Amino acid sequence: MATIITLDDPGDPRADDYRDLTSADRRPDRPGGRGLVIAEGVVVVRRMIDSPYPVRSLLGVRRRIDELATDLAGLAVPAYATDAPTMAEVVGFHLNRGVLAVADRAAPPDPAALVRDARLVAVLEGVNDHENLGALFRNAAALGVDAVLLGPRCSDPLYRRSVRVSMGHVLRVPFTELPGPWPASLDVLRAAGLRVAALTPAADAVPITASGLQGERVALLLGAEGPGLSDEALAAADLRVRIPMATGVDSLNVATAAAVAFHAVGSVVG
Amino acid sequence: MATIITLDDPGDPRADDYRDLTSADRRPDRPGGRGLVIAEGVVVVRRMIDSPYPVRSLLGVRRRIDELATDLAGLAVPAYATDAPTMAEVVGFHLNRGVLAVADRAAPPDPAALVRDARLVAVLEGVNDHENLGALFRNAAALGVDAVLLGPRCSDPLYRRSVRVSMGHVLRVPFTELPGPWPASLDVLRAAGLRVAALTPAADAVPITASGLQGERVALLLGAEGPGLSDEALAAADLRVRIPMATGVDSLNVATAAAVAFHAVGSVVG
Repeated sequence: MATIITLDDPGDPRADDYRDLTSADRRPDRPGGRGLVIAEGVVVVRRMIDSPYPVRSLLGVRRRIDELATDLAGLAVPAYATDAPTMAEVVGFHLNRGVLAVADRAAPPDPAALVRDARLVAVLEGVNDHENLGALFRNAAALGVDAVLLGPRCSDPLYRRSVRVSMGHVLRVPFTELPGPWPASLDVLRAAGLRVAALTPAADAVPITASGLQGERVALLLGAEGPGLSDEALAAADLRVRIPMATGVDSLNVATAAAVAFHAVGSVVG
Repeated sequence: MATIITLDDPGDPRADDYRDLTSADRRPDRPGGRGLVIAEGVVVVRRMIDSPYPVRSLLGVRRRIDELATDLAGLAVPAYATDAPTMAEVVGFHLNRGVLAVADRAAPPDPAALVRDARLVAVLEGVNDHENLGALFRNAAALGVDAVLLGPRCSDPLYRRSVRVSMGHVLRVPFTELPGPWPASLDVLRAAGLRVAALTPAADAVPITASGLQGERVALLLGAEGPGLSDEALAAADLRVRIPMATGVDSLNVATAAAVAFHAVGSVVG
């Protein structure tokens, strides 16, 4: 059972993990920005407690801490109960969601182990917008993606805003960086028996529903909205697939395109 | 050709359509909030110029006005060229995108005429989040939705934030309110020969890819994230379809679920 401790002094050093979160986001080298993982709100805090990330503590208004009583039963960490003004002073802004939890990072999984039995893997190149990245993880969790591999120029999925937008699903879908020279590093996927399909708006790519990928084990390569995948990444794929789109419309948001593609490949059956 | 007029006094009454936009959003009855449609940024302003909405004027920094020269060639309205500080004082905040256009509303199309030859229609119930609504229109434009019908409790797609998030596609995809008692009003769709399919996470609904809707003329009923469709709307549909999802995951964002469904129904072929 978590120990509930009343905290009424905003200067209390036990709240340091939560201090000035906005500045900490900008300066991961500073206290509070030491690469800790922050969960905001009851739903996301619950997912963090259920995740492999080792929770350090909670900080919240009493009502939210009480709401988490069942979740806290098996957790031997302090839960600091405070009021909204004290909390606002600690974190540096008013937090609607009323409760935070902080965890250490977990050791990243080995890419080869991660993809060995995967049915559907998302491989990202240059997805550097925190909200898009979070939304992509939410969609990945819903649509049966077994793992996410981060290629070059992606942002950190454990950044606070990504965790929030993902509704905590970045803590649930296993991910890791893909090491080695890009895109030769994609060979780890082929070695595991996955077909590597690049998603692109290019007119000469195969419509994804006609690609024969349904029921296959697939690694789906996704690039950022705007630039899309690099020529090297496109050339390294086994095939190029597209989502048919109306003429004159910009590409979909990357997280939305990913959702359409995840569904089209049909990992979740039921 | 639009007349380019230099405007250097933030109090100039010719800029009244753009005044205090944030307050105007909250008070559509006030000057500047008279139900005018506001486009922000070069891409969206361009879409407004190409739309059926009658443009009243533009206001922007000189560089952005110049960028729109070709688009302005056939447009007999004033384009007020100013500098960033004057513009910020007029609109009430600093506007990154550097150019605005304002249009009057257009008369809403007749629902029966709108759906007569439509291949794919989206019908919304309770979609009252401006960002979700905007994103939904963007996805509708990309994935071949011919018309959007607004059922009860939807917000206004022409609200400034929706226009922006849609990237201007609310000005492109025809929409109107569905009049009459809900959900009996859905009969207008059946009368036009469309099958009415409700999208729901319910486990006993048919997976959308197994629904036989591919290639059919379809009206897709969509409810808000969270509450979803009302029981009345679900009961009024010809069939209920779902997107298979991993267990333990909340439903997708409504705009994302809509995109997956639009694609699955396969309106855009190619």
